[in-house]
Parts: sequence; structure tokens; C-alpha cells
Amino acid sequence: MAELTVFHIPVCPFCQRLEILLSLKGRRDDVTFSVIDITQPRPDWLLAKARGTTALPILENADGQVIKESLVILQYLEDLYPKPGVAQRDPYRRAVENMLTQMEAQFCAQGYTYVMNQDLERRDALREGMLKQYARLNDFLVEHAPSGPFLYEDFGWAETLFTPLFMRFWFLEYYEDFQLPKGDQYARVREWRDASISHPAAQQVTKEQIVKLYYDYAKGAGKGMLLPGRRRSSFAFEPHWRARPWPPKAKYEYAATDEELGL
Amino acid sequence: MAELTVFHIPVCPFCQRLEILLSLKGRRDDVTFSVIDITQPRPDWLLAKARGTTALPILENADGQVIKESLVILQYLEDLYPKPGVAQRDPYRRAVENMLTQMEAQFCAQGYTYVMNQDLERRDALREGMLKQYARLNDFLVEHAPSGPFLYEDFGWAETLFTPLFMRFWFLEYYEDFQLPKGDQYARVREWRDASISHPAAQQVTKEQIVKLYYDYAKGAGKGMLLPGRRRSSFAFEPHWRARPWPPKAKYEYAATDEELGL
Repeated sequence: MAELTVFHIPVCPFCQRLEILLSLKGRRDDVTFSVIDITQPRPDWLLAKARGTTALPILENADGQVIKESLVILQYLEDLYPKPGVAQRDPYRRAVENMLTQMEAQFCAQGYTYVMNQDLERRDALREGMLKQYARLNDFLVEHAPSGPFLYEDFGWAETLFTPLFMRFWFLEYYEDFQLPKGDQYARVREWRDASISHPAAQQVTKEQIVKLYYDYAKGAGKGMLLPGRRRSSFAFEPHWRARPWPPKAKYEYAATDEELGL
Repeated sequence: MAELTVFHIPVCPFCQRLEILLSLKGRRDDVTFSVIDITQPRPDWLLAKARGTTALPILENADGQVIKESLVILQYLEDLYPKPGVAQRDPYRRAVENMLTQMEAQFCAQGYTYVMNQDLERRDALREGMLKQYARLNDFLVEHAPSGPFLYEDFGWAETLFTPLFMRFWFLEYYEDFQLPKGDQYARVREWRDASISHPAAQQVTKEQIVKLYYDYAKGAGKGMLLPGRRRSSFAFEPHWRARPWPPKAKYEYAATDEELGL
């Protein structure tokens, strides 16, 4: 039996980070991943573990100690299973990696704000904001890692953090027709994104899965909340997402019913 | 000559963190601190170093490599001068420390939003928000470090991060009459704050200095910006803050002139 348990929600990007890190270390089977249904109220035993907070993932070790926040859990796993190291060890290389890591929160917030937007008039500004985030990453990579594809020799700490977001942002391609424009301004970040998405350690989710489960996000309802007129969340466990049709792309013009979504 | 140079603004809390960490390591003299006057436009040579961004502090090493973001610089210094270690090394202890560290950004944002507020009607809500932040820290410390005063045996990584904020929030005591209420709900965080503020490694600034330099923040003008009718910023280097009178406390009712502020 695994000594560590992670409680998470389906296709949570912050949880996928943990799976990627463990895969890179050959330690995926050392941790039990327990899926929480966010379309239901949190069970009392989970709230007790997390001391009342509802954010996931949380990790519990064999001593019953609980750790929250995906970046904190990642560092814990890196320290617990130091070989092979995924984070850089040299002080300056680590600092560069950490500067890139610091850009993740804004990148994430921009993508989620964009997909959840319901105001057609804000759409262009959100697209511009997203492009700025990519341009910032591009600039950083051109400065610190011009030869690519990764920040350093291999898929590492920064890729572990960003790849689940690159994958979630498939919802922007589908629901917002967002594409990185061709050209030099985004060439380096595109190379980084594409190499990261293709890496064998990061194949926990698919585009189809993301697009189908995040339909409610695209209509403005996050974290398993129910939209008006709907009785089931797109994050519901049943029916399985494979058995559902692809949702309508026209998020600004149309609201699909449970039936149309195969729920 | 020092091999490392930090460029920072006067009484910047993020820079004080670096000074505290270096003091704990007996390395304060290994780094040159170069003060930037934020009441003036950033010099071109500094913008070039920081690749166009204006956020400070930045650190430059002997090879001309530039590191931004105070948490990244702190980790760089911790790695460069590993003994004595300030951050925890045991994986779980480090995770607890990192969970506390993760609470710093919201704590900081709340305090700065509060001091910069100009709307009397928002004042109570901002006070409540600040108290919630302290209650959250209190709860965390009661869970993980009930015996105190610090998170672990000594003033460490978490204290290095939070102490400069505890000290900046003297501006809340002065301009907002904000005090932590007596009683159990805040007892543990008060003990932590008071022990941290008193630590010999953290004596780079005084209450008088904070209150005088942050007058413009209390009137809503951050980062060296000029208030209407004023010709000098309270962050000006001259006259020295010691030579100036204490500013008026009544921030909602009154706007002091340069002359009244001794500028």
C-alpha cells in the first residue's frame, strides 16, 4: 500500500503536476491518487483533513500529516525522492528556473479568466492579455534558453509546472478560437509548449477530455458549480467523458442542455 | 569588493528580506546594496539590466547575471551560502514552512490595499480583511507550532519573509489606528510577530522611518508617485527622514503639504 495519498479533482492541472513529477522520478506507484467528486459537497472526513479549506489537491503522508498547495507538495516530493532530481541544483540555474516558475500564477489566471468570460465585448482584450503572457514567456526563454526546446537539457521543474496549463488551454483553442500567431514573437514559447505537451511523462490527459469536462468553465461556472437550467455538471463522473459528444463551440451564443452534453 | 549587488528602493520590504537572510548567515558584507531613487525615472543602465522591467529588488552577480523577484533571490542566497541554513531541510518541516510562506502574498496585498485606501466607507471592511489575514496566520501557527515563539526553534525562513511586512504594517497602526485585538484569536500570531520584530537580524528599519516614508502610500500614492499639489515624494532621499516631523495621522481628513512634511 502506498504511503502517500493525494486527494484531487478530475483533470485538475495542479494535480497533474504531481503525477508528472512522480513519473519523471519513476515513483508514480508510490502515491495513491484519490479522486474527489467536486459536483458533490465535500465529505466531512476530507474537510477535517484539510482543516476546513476546500482547495485541492492535498497530500497526506503515512503519519497523517497533511500538505496543501501544489507547489509545496511538489517540493515535498522532490525532497522526499531526491533522485533523479527534477529541480535544478546549481544556485544560478535554480534561480532562472524559479523566475520562470514565478510567471506561472499570472499565466494560469489569465487563461482561466479568458475561458470563463461571458462578455463578448471583453473577448478581444482577454485574447490580447493571453498573448502578452505568451510573449513574456517567449522573451524569457529567448534570453535564458535560446536553443531549446526545454529550459534546460531535459523536461524539468518548469515544464512540470507549465505543461498542465498548456494542456488546459486547449479549452481556449476550442471555445475561444485562440491560437498562438505564427512568427518570431511566439516561436520559442511555441517550441517549448509543443515539446512539453508531447513529453511521455505528461500524458495523463487528452484534449478531448479537457474540452468536454471544462464545458461549464467555458460557460462561466467553475469548480463543479451548476449552470442555470442544468442538473449535472460537465465535471460529473458519469457518463464517462468518452461516451459524451463534443460540446458546442459557440459559447457566447448558445447554452447546451444536459442532454446535448450527454450528461 | 562584493561580488553581488542588490539594487533596491529605500525601506523596500522585499529588500529587507535579503538583508535579514544575509545577517542570519553572517554574510551581510558580501553583498553591496545600491539604493535607487524611485522618485526619479529609472536610469537606462538599470532598465537594461532588468530587461525593461521596473520591479525591484534585482540582484546582479559577478558574471553580470541578473536575478529578479525577492523570493527567487532569497533562495539563490540560501543556495549560494548554504551554511548556516535558514530554510528547513527535512521534507515535511520544509513543506510546513512553505505552506506558511504561501500565505505571505495575500497578507502583503491586504496590508497595502488597506493603507492605500482613500474611501472612508471601505475602511471597516479593510480592517476586517486584515484581521482575517492575522487570524489565518494564528490558526496555522496554533496547528503547526503551538509552543512558539517562532515556527521552528529559531527565527528562520518564514520569519525572514514576514518580518519586513510586520514592520511595514506599522503604517496601519499609525494611519489606520489598526491594532491586533487582545484575546486568544490573535495571541499566537502576536507572539510570533513581536518575537520576529525584536530579532537582532531584523533591525534594518524603524517605526519612525516607515511612518514618515510611507506617508504618500497612506494618501494613496505608491512607488514614488506624486500626490496633487505636492512637489516632492515622501520617499525622497533629502531631507533625511530623521529631520522631518511626524506626518499628520488623519489621512482621511487632511492632506499635508511638502512643507508640513518637512520635504
